[in-house]
Amino acid sequence: MERIICSNCKHEYSYLSKIWNCQRCSSPLNIIYSKRRFNRDLIIKETYSIWRYKNFLPPLRNIISLGEGWTPLIKHTHRDTNLLFKLEYLMPSGSFKDRGTSVAISRALDLGVDHVIEDSSGNAGISLSIYAAKAGVKADIYVPKDIPKGKLKILEAAEANIFLSNNRKKAYENAVKASKNGFYIGHLWNPFYIEGFKTLVYEVWEQLGGLFPDHIFVPVGSGSNLLGIYYGLEDLLDVGYIDEIPSLIAVEAAGYDIIHKELFGDSGLPRTELADGLRVLFKPRKRELLEIIRTYGHAMVVDETEIMEAYKSLWRLGFTVEPTSSVVYAAFKKAYESGDIRGDDIVLLPLTGNGIKMII
Amino acid sequence: MERIICSNCKHEYSYLSKIWNCQRCSSPLNIIYSKRRFNRDLIIKETYSIWRYKNFLPPLRNIISLGEGWTPLIKHTHRDTNLLFKLEYLMPSGSFKDRGTSVAISRALDLGVDHVIEDSSGNAGISLSIYAAKAGVKADIYVPKDIPKGKLKILEAAEANIFLSNNRKKAYENAVKASKNGFYIGHLWNPFYIEGFKTLVYEVWEQLGGLFPDHIFVPVGSGSNLLGIYYGLEDLLDVGYIDEIPSLIAVEAAGYDIIHKELFGDSGLPRTELADGLRVLFKPRKRELLEIIRTYGHAMVVDETEIMEAYKSLWRLGFTVEPTSSVVYAAFKKAYESGDIRGDDIVLLPLTGNGIKMII
Repeated sequence: MERIICSNCKHEYSYLSKIWNCQRCSSPLNIIYSKRRFNRDLIIKETYSIWRYKNFLPPLRNIISLGEGWTPLIKHTHRDTNLLFKLEYLMPSGSFKDRGTSVAISRALDLGVDHVIEDSSGNAGISLSIYAAKAGVKADIYVPKDIPKGKLKILEAAEANIFLSNNRKKAYENAVKASKNGFYIGHLWNPFYIEGFKTLVYEVWEQLGGLFPDHIFVPVGSGSNLLGIYYGLEDLLDVGYIDEIPSLIAVEAAGYDIIHKELFGDSGLPRTELADGLRVLFKPRKRELLEIIRTYGHAMVVDETEIMEAYKSLWRLGFTVEPTSSVVYAAFKKAYESGDIRGDDIVLLPLTGNGIKMII
Repeated sequence: MERIICSNCKHEYSYLSKIWNCQRCSSPLNIIYSKRRFNRDLIIKETYSIWRYKNFLPPLRNIISLGEGWTPLIKHTHRDTNLLFKLEYLMPSGSFKDRGTSVAISRALDLGVDHVIEDSSGNAGISLSIYAAKAGVKADIYVPKDIPKGKLKILEAAEANIFLSNNRKKAYENAVKASKNGFYIGHLWNPFYIEGFKTLVYEVWEQLGGLFPDHIFVPVGSGSNLLGIYYGLEDLLDVGYIDEIPSLIAVEAAGYDIIHKELFGDSGLPRTELADGLRVLFKPRKRELLEIIRTYGHAMVVDETEIMEAYKSLWRLGFTVEPTSSVVYAAFKKAYESGDIRGDDIVLLPLTGNGIKMII
């Protein structure tokens, strides 16, 4: 039987526990699998969503799916370097969050939940509203009051109960306070989101048929996407399907560069609000992120001009991303210019959010 | 060698001809294949886009792809009826048009074109702008001045040259007039779009693994999606992969119900502008559409209340569609209530356009 374990004090809880953080030290929780060995023969080949990897996800009785995952992988050459754009924005709710939401809402149903509560800078709330509608579950979403208007309108169309807070941190605090009336699904905390995010790595491995990227750039807001990607890589490494963990580059937006600051000190760059999805100053899983990035990765910070330039370049390549998603391309170009990427390296750039909802 | 043939007078032209309509009778053109036999062994199984069916598409040297196609097929039960929603809105530009655009822009490159001209109610123009950007081709897009604002903003973000006309018909006339300066790609006319739309049928056939829908509801603006679907079905029937052509239900919006009027007279319903993608009064391929619908199908018209109700219902099922896309669900519900659909029938509803670009 699977168990829930505290990421910090390692206290263990029953798999069926409804808690959202450690009752002893308040840290985020993780899942311990009774067995979690990736195996190409256990992929459900006729399913083209994250649920083709059902056998490597936590056990669930309910499955709420809208066809999330199995997103296109588009090759592009930047001079001599092979770029792979993973179009995570072509998901049911328009962002990569759907990988995690599909797992987390299924889990919530398994726990008998009929009312979920969440705080979000936008995309996670949109994703949850849409999956909650599909699941027939009530959704209360706490967002900062300066959420982009396009994102707010989608929340309204999805008939979420929307609560505006003064800023992102207040949204989190208000959601937690309200959670006595419902189930706090908290994607910054909930390990079932991270489990869903692992599937990106499995997909890339299948889609490339053997080859694997040398570098993966990941936008870091709360960092749960990067954690999921890391755990997916670990799964592949465990069974020898890849030889080593690629370099994992955490990309933050100037002024919200918590990880970068911890590792390299102040960037000195002026704060930008352009990558609205990365305006997360409070990262509950910072300790876990730092550990992985120190061992396998690197951290980069990009400023407003670089984000805007990358955003425009991506649209010109046919990718209708939102500004938040373009930070990885901005960071890649900087790393390439500085010589950190060798010519013949393979570089994976997940493009996380659809920009057609919020043209800037 | 493939040839181009007039859909009306049957005059033939060279496959490399740049003309967009018949030089004798001004009718739309079609493609005659030297051989076009669908064959499961010739599917390119490691490609997950329309290009897995490259061997059943017109021969092309250039291929411009953004990963279009291979969209999710989501099962849903409406009382005792099995519905299949095909999420065509999860495409690179947010609509089913990408299937056609990918083929048509590739063809344009083969012809040496570096400047395309198009008229559109919105989605076709958005699709073309994005693929033209990817292909490095200049795009002039003529749209009606009452195009939804969200669609206009995407055209701007894609850096199309936008020309506003008084209405949809004027947009067409202005585009044709301007085509002396560039290549009129005209999706209402261009048979390469229709060829791309065939791939939806191949996909559904593969995704269902043997079963096949009894009814397919298709929104009809210009009707090219329905024509493509029909030709795809013909391909499967030719080689015995399906036993018969399912019933094809052409769905139009009240006030724009050209096909329905021709078959059944005036519906008497007040005009609606809600399904903005279906406001196409001029259908160059009307004769071909009528022939197919008379033989295999049916025509239905839905009004504003029905469209709005279906739109809201679809969002509640987790499908973030635009109003235009919801006409098929509105028509299905009406057909179900009237007893035209038997309980255990399988019904395919393609959902054609993403609504996150234009929340109503």
